[in-house]
Amino acid sequence: MRKAHTRNDDELLPMRSVPVGSADARRRGLPSLKITGVRVVVTCPDRNYVLVKILTSEPGLYGVGDATLNGRELAVATALEQHIAPTLIGRDPEQVEDIWQCLYRAPYWRAGPIQMTALAGVDLALWDIKGKRAGMPVYQLLGGRARRGAIAYTHASGRDFNETEEAVRRAMARGFKCVRAQVAIPGLEGTYGTSSTRTSEETAGRVDLQAELPATEVFEPGPYLRHIPKLFEHLRTQLGEEVELLHDVHQKLRPIEAAQLACELEPYHLLFLEDPVPPEAKDGLRLIRQRSGTPLAIGELIHSPMEFLPLITERLIDYIRCAVTHVGGLTAARKLATLAEFYQVKTAWHGPADVGPAAHAASVHLDISLQNFGIQEMVFFPEVAREVMPGGTSFRDGYMDVDDSPGLGTDVNEELAKKYPYRRSYLPLARRKDGSVQDW
Amino acid sequence: MRKAHTRNDDELLPMRSVPVGSADARRRGLPSLKITGVRVVVTCPDRNYVLVKILTSEPGLYGVGDATLNGRELAVATALEQHIAPTLIGRDPEQVEDIWQCLYRAPYWRAGPIQMTALAGVDLALWDIKGKRAGMPVYQLLGGRARRGAIAYTHASGRDFNETEEAVRRAMARGFKCVRAQVAIPGLEGTYGTSSTRTSEETAGRVDLQAELPATEVFEPGPYLRHIPKLFEHLRTQLGEEVELLHDVHQKLRPIEAAQLACELEPYHLLFLEDPVPPEAKDGLRLIRQRSGTPLAIGELIHSPMEFLPLITERLIDYIRCAVTHVGGLTAARKLATLAEFYQVKTAWHGPADVGPAAHAASVHLDISLQNFGIQEMVFFPEVAREVMPGGTSFRDGYMDVDDSPGLGTDVNEELAKKYPYRRSYLPLARRKDGSVQDW
Amino acid sequence: MRKAHTRNDDELLPMRSVPVGSADARRRGLPSLKITGVRVVVTCPDRNYVLVKILTSEPGLYGVGDATLNGRELAVATALEQHIAPTLIGRDPEQVEDIWQCLYRAPYWRAGPIQMTALAGVDLALWDIKGKRAGMPVYQLLGGRARRGAIAYTHASGRDFNETEEAVRRAMARGFKCVRAQVAIPGLEGTYGTSSTRTSEETAGRVDLQAELPATEVFEPGPYLRHIPKLFEHLRTQLGEEVELLHDVHQKLRPIEAAQLACELEPYHLLFLEDPVPPEAKDGLRLIRQRSGTPLAIGELIHSPMEFLPLITERLIDYIRCAVTHVGGLTAARKLATLAEFYQVKTAWHGPADVGPAAHAASVHLDISLQNFGIQEMVFFPEVAREVMPGGTSFRDGYMDVDDSPGLGTDVNEELAKKYPYRRSYLPLARRKDGSVQDW
Amino acid sequence: MRKAHTRNDDELLPMRSVPVGSADARRRGLPSLKITGVRVVVTCPDRNYVLVKILTSEPGLYGVGDATLNGRELAVATALEQHIAPTLIGRDPEQVEDIWQCLYRAPYWRAGPIQMTALAGVDLALWDIKGKRAGMPVYQLLGGRARRGAIAYTHASGRDFNETEEAVRRAMARGFKCVRAQVAIPGLEGTYGTSSTRTSEETAGRVDLQAELPATEVFEPGPYLRHIPKLFEHLRTQLGEEVELLHDVHQKLRPIEAAQLACELEPYHLLFLEDPVPPEAKDGLRLIRQRSGTPLAIGELIHSPMEFLPLITERLIDYIRCAVTHVGGLTAARKLATLAEFYQVKTAWHGPADVGPAAHAASVHLDISLQNFGIQEMVFFPEVAREVMPGGTSFRDGYMDVDDSPGLGTDVNEELAKKYPYRRSYLPLARRKDGSVQDW
Repeated sequence: MRKAHTRNDDELLPMRSVPVGSADARRRGLPSLKITGVRVVVTCPDRNYVLVKILTSEPGLYGVGDATLNGRELAVATALEQHIAPTLIGRDPEQVEDIWQCLYRAPYWRAGPIQMTALAGVDLALWDIKGKRAGMPVYQLLGGRARRGAIAYTHASGRDFNETEEAVRRAMARGFKCVRAQVAIPGLEGTYGTSSTRTSEETAGRVDLQAELPATEVFEPGPYLRHIPKLFEHLRTQLGEEVELLHDVHQKLRPIEAAQLACELEPYHLLFLEDPVPPEAKDGLRLIRQRSGTPLAIGELIHSPMEFLPLITERLIDYIRCAVTHVGGLTAARKLATLAEFYQVKTAWHGPADVGPAAHAASVHLDISLQNFGIQEMVFFPEVAREVMPGGTSFRDGYMDVDDSPGLGTDVNEELAKKYPYRRSYLPLARRKDGSVQDW
Repeated sequence: MRKAHTRNDDELLPMRSVPVGSADARRRGLPSLKITGVRVVVTCPDRNYVLVKILTSEPGLYGVGDATLNGRELAVATALEQHIAPTLIGRDPEQVEDIWQCLYRAPYWRAGPIQMTALAGVDLALWDIKGKRAGMPVYQLLGGRARRGAIAYTHASGRDFNETEEAVRRAMARGFKCVRAQVAIPGLEGTYGTSSTRTSEETAGRVDLQAELPATEVFEPGPYLRHIPKLFEHLRTQLGEEVELLHDVHQKLRPIEAAQLACELEPYHLLFLEDPVPPEAKDGLRLIRQRSGTPLAIGELIHSPMEFLPLITERLIDYIRCAVTHVGGLTAARKLATLAEFYQVKTAWHGPADVGPAAHAASVHLDISLQNFGIQEMVFFPEVAREVMPGGTSFRDGYMDVDDSPGLGTDVNEELAKKYPYRRSYLPLARRKDGSVQDW
Repeated sequence: MRKAHTRNDDELLPMRSVPVGSADARRRGLPSLKITGVRVVVTCPDRNYVLVKILTSEPGLYGVGDATLNGRELAVATALEQHIAPTLIGRDPEQVEDIWQCLYRAPYWRAGPIQMTALAGVDLALWDIKGKRAGMPVYQLLGGRARRGAIAYTHASGRDFNETEEAVRRAMARGFKCVRAQVAIPGLEGTYGTSSTRTSEETAGRVDLQAELPATEVFEPGPYLRHIPKLFEHLRTQLGEEVELLHDVHQKLRPIEAAQLACELEPYHLLFLEDPVPPEAKDGLRLIRQRSGTPLAIGELIHSPMEFLPLITERLIDYIRCAVTHVGGLTAARKLATLAEFYQVKTAWHGPADVGPAAHAASVHLDISLQNFGIQEMVFFPEVAREVMPGGTSFRDGYMDVDDSPGLGTDVNEELAKKYPYRRSYLPLARRKDGSVQDW
Repeated sequence: MRKAHTRNDDELLPMRSVPVGSADARRRGLPSLKITGVRVVVTCPDRNYVLVKILTSEPGLYGVGDATLNGRELAVATALEQHIAPTLIGRDPEQVEDIWQCLYRAPYWRAGPIQMTALAGVDLALWDIKGKRAGMPVYQLLGGRARRGAIAYTHASGRDFNETEEAVRRAMARGFKCVRAQVAIPGLEGTYGTSSTRTSEETAGRVDLQAELPATEVFEPGPYLRHIPKLFEHLRTQLGEEVELLHDVHQKLRPIEAAQLACELEPYHLLFLEDPVPPEAKDGLRLIRQRSGTPLAIGELIHSPMEFLPLITERLIDYIRCAVTHVGGLTAARKLATLAEFYQVKTAWHGPADVGPAAHAASVHLDISLQNFGIQEMVFFPEVAREVMPGGTSFRDGYMDVDDSPGLGTDVNEELAKKYPYRRSYLPLARRKDGSVQDW
């Protein structure tokens, strides 16, 4: 016969005799707070999102988090609904650190993108609740505002140098002072970050642009390495020195190749070169560092703060560029940022539309409260996404910001979300010309 | 409108002009082979298992793999069914390496226990198919038999030293020359690896012994550190020096604590001390190494071969102790073993009943073909599990072996599996006496 | 003519056009919050304390912090009143991180114990205000309760082994599970941590026990190194293994001497050996580490989180043992703890009566919310001190805790404080027998 | 009851039986010498200075030291008057090393700019006394003259390249062979080291130019990094290669940014690039060193000789650039220089008008007696400051020197000093354009 599990007042106490959490609430004149429900919303308002809504025993008090992992949405949702949610019911939602540690360690087989994203969805919802309970925007709980806004960069790409230049100019006209520039490589079908049919403003990740099965892009390091320095020579000649430019290698190079690129891009003074090598090669950053002073950012594929350890402490990177939601939420991202602060490494949280407004809001709450914020990636959500997931960040004159709503300041319209059911969708796969698998 | 995806004859070639796979088949006088279906079986014959069955275009030819991840079973199953399976249909199952690389890299957000275990399930099924296609047991494809059998260790535990001693004696009586010994720590409720009501032969992980919600165990390093050396003093005094003894710390210590334990266990000559620290602390193995010559094994919570660098290259460990299935399957485990061979580090693949017979079989196929096999963990499956998942490994006189059936030599009885539906079940959570979360 | 300084609504903005702070308040339906006064209270209810009281524009809303630096009280008070306070008036007290950064960097000549303690006094008062504003105890802002209480240790000392043993027994009788043990060294006049006339319960630092000029103690490493291992042999023989014992070297040894001591103390399983070398010799911890597995704590004389860097990242210590108030307050201590968490290094904040109740409370708010809390040093304040500085921590059954009052939960009775004016008082100085200066 | 403290003849001896100091005096035929008074003078003849005057039992014999710490003057003065002075009365002023060690270690909470500067004030006054007692200039006590004079550099700055060029030319016309060049950065309000209204000869730090509250300067690394190499290209083109040029980054850059600047300045052969990163980032000098051969100087914000390890032992810098007074006085600076001599690192003591004539004199006494002197920073004091603090260094043909007056050769006119009372004054604070705090 299975052991009955009677959850006690306070999960913290193995002895289960002192209801600390509820005692706290009583002394504060608040009713004891409990998690009463966890709802996972999977919706596709132009692309798929996974949202976590945590309900509490206080009428009307709930939190909303984002647990979107592009292309693995249902695995995250299953982890949340089937394995994680049952362990949350009855717990005190104000014990954010303890719940984080439980969700991180209790599966035993810990970490990885699916679990860290699921954990982040819960973590964001709990910080949302704590902010609402305090009557404060989350950044106030994180130490208060330390800057006016979060300087942002967006994407510009084109089929050739002129198209990319035009895309950068359009971004600048919208107010951006920093722009990531990509260009199609002649002879390579389907270069990352470019589109043969769309301008770069049209969000690249829209599910109706994605294949029902993974599309295949072709990549060769030779043509890429020859072409990219010329793009930046073109851009600097045409646009001058003031606009900050960035470039995303998207993990496509080996260390020695990335070292060559970083070296040849030096004259163009990039704000940073992003993800020059795949995470398996991150020790190879030493080789790049020896050869080049181009600032480096890495982390889109890193899903645990621990993995950043030697990169930060050896000052092999200048920006941590993981997603707040893929690395375990505000609790984890903040700790990672603190580690980085000791080494003058700055933050550049992942910010395309493949994570939802709650994730963007959480990033910006961190950005404006951190000492070592660097820059924030951003895109514009389409209208339909903003209706399903109202609230979140604003953009003005190159800077992102959040307003002063208590909590994270985002929500989910569950009724509307149902009108946009999940649609299976894959990110592309890359191959070399000989057909062998290549990091996308 | 979504792009239609017409899968080409040969996924390897972006140009899609040369159907290499099928041409190869034609040359070998075989009909071109395709994956025609992927079935995921979740079943609970005494505990939960996730099995992957890959069907092919050759009538009767299929492979069976194990993708069990204790406590996260449905997340793995969803990843397989919803995200991975659709990308496999139509592919040539003989392209094991290419499929491995695709499944590893194509989700983009790579690795982690859920994805690596799902990938392993597919990988094992593909090696099973390849063996059957060749008419050979898998170990033949891995280079052939390099030893008569795989020396095995099993678990012994007790509520006190005498009970543990008796359990070791029973294991020795069954033929084991190597035994892992654990004992309950006085004053700590629910010590890992021990049971207050069952002998250690009764599989500790049986789902009917697990709680519907995570049970809480209590751990304190002080009493544990004081007690364990006395256990081994007792065992060596009573059992002599010939039986090889092991102990599993189960990630419960900090590096400085583990260093003390490893130091004080030196006189008892353990075959190895297992998982002395959690994976986040694995750089702390340097501290243990400075202080003690007790051989070290680590890896149960490591889910990517990359994470074993630099544990192997700095010779900080003596045995890699991950699960073949949790680290990405035969394809990944074999590469990891190859790396280890360069540094005289040996294998000790994870082998309790929390992974199924196909996983055990895959481990032993590797064991008997590797140069640097060390030891194999094993338990005895209950009858009901062996009926649902027939075939697999044998045990005689301290050694495990596989027979010469083509492939891995295991199967799944899908009809019978349905009679044992999934039951939600959690591994325990550990807390310190003050209620704070502790690695289990 | 000096430039007039008209402080704008928002210090964050060099352009001074957007009153972010007050806009935030308005949207939250709160009146715009300003710092309207900073009062520094120096008082001597049995020993000297420096308290910082920050008043705000909200009637009745103020915060209290501790800025006590034993023996340098007036220098801290002058820094606060003359240099720091004028820069705080008119600022938004909720911008804790920004104010911290300003106070840290704006003096230009940064850091050091006097400035970091002054900064901490402000920082604690601001967190107190933020907690009150949120209606939450500070630990809720730090992530919520992660343990039932903070396990504590206290001091036991004696003129000989028996007296120390008796003192440990008295501490155990009061509920302590962990006790720091010191003993007078025969032939050395005035051993640190012992008294020729008082029992160890009587707070060693009371100003009426201190000299008006620094007293001189005598220290020789030889007798000390020969005597201390015998103390712990005595204690373990008499008290058994269960009570956790600690010892404070109080920076008195060179690395090679400390290595000898740490090595010879191994059989007695100290929880930690404290401050084995002075901060100038902290790189010498490598030498101790090579020779001994005795856990190490350091930091009482470290006044900047940055100084812990290689100690933590190289895992040369097991506990950070600085004072929350001497290292820059909650903002700084929390960041330091986060850094340490990445390396399994735990906290053991300084906690004698040489810092006041607000400092103790801040430590315990951190302790119960941190993942990597280790242990908390504590003493009992005399009644008179508790009347002047009401509120703070509680002690029960070996654990410290804070109640759930909003903010830090401590206060200052300014009227009563005036009755106990500052009395100049010095810590002792140590010399070798040949008269040369020695670290005390 | 407080212990009465009867100071013994000789502080060195805990036994207090052998009055070494006075016995020594007797043997030398001198009356026994005692410190009889310590006077702290805070005065503002155009900017604030803190002076320490130590009186002795020998009529007319006193010493004068400088303890100026710009913006924290009163905290230093309080430390001296309230905490340090009482411990000096009655001591033998010739025991400079012993007093240094006592003042360094006896506060227990040691070091930091306030305490090290206070200690330096005492130390300089004691060396002044010792020189007067010996009838020798201090450099004779340091080993005697080792060079004719100390080559000096001064500051030149401007609102644009031409203005800076003109300022350099004026400095060259005054005899300087080495000039530090700074220029305003377009678009950044209030660049460090430049003034919109004054020529660079007019001392930038004059208190009547400072705000009553910290002024805010704006800094952005991008424009700075683009502008500075062009300044030096301009200067080298216009001024040729013979004049030695220097540049002060003033701690404003991150390591990767400083590496870029150091790299791009290589063609202009700077004598050194000063303080490229803040002290918290000093390990980041390794990154700069990998990328550039531009000589580096650091130390203005370093207040303890210990912090220069391993900058010196790894040869990460070429000049130590701390203030003799902020690092603990002649006793400390000389030891630091000795360490540097072992590694071919040279001295470049801090020398603007923010430290007084006694500090400048102490620097030059060291400069002319050290083997590894490098260069000396200098400015011209206004007439009023020279009247209040007569004596000190001279300048001729690019070299500084001191005359052969006994002691340091400087004094303080206490009556005149009273006419220029302390005026509260702050150094500026810097912020980024987004309002976040930036190192000034």
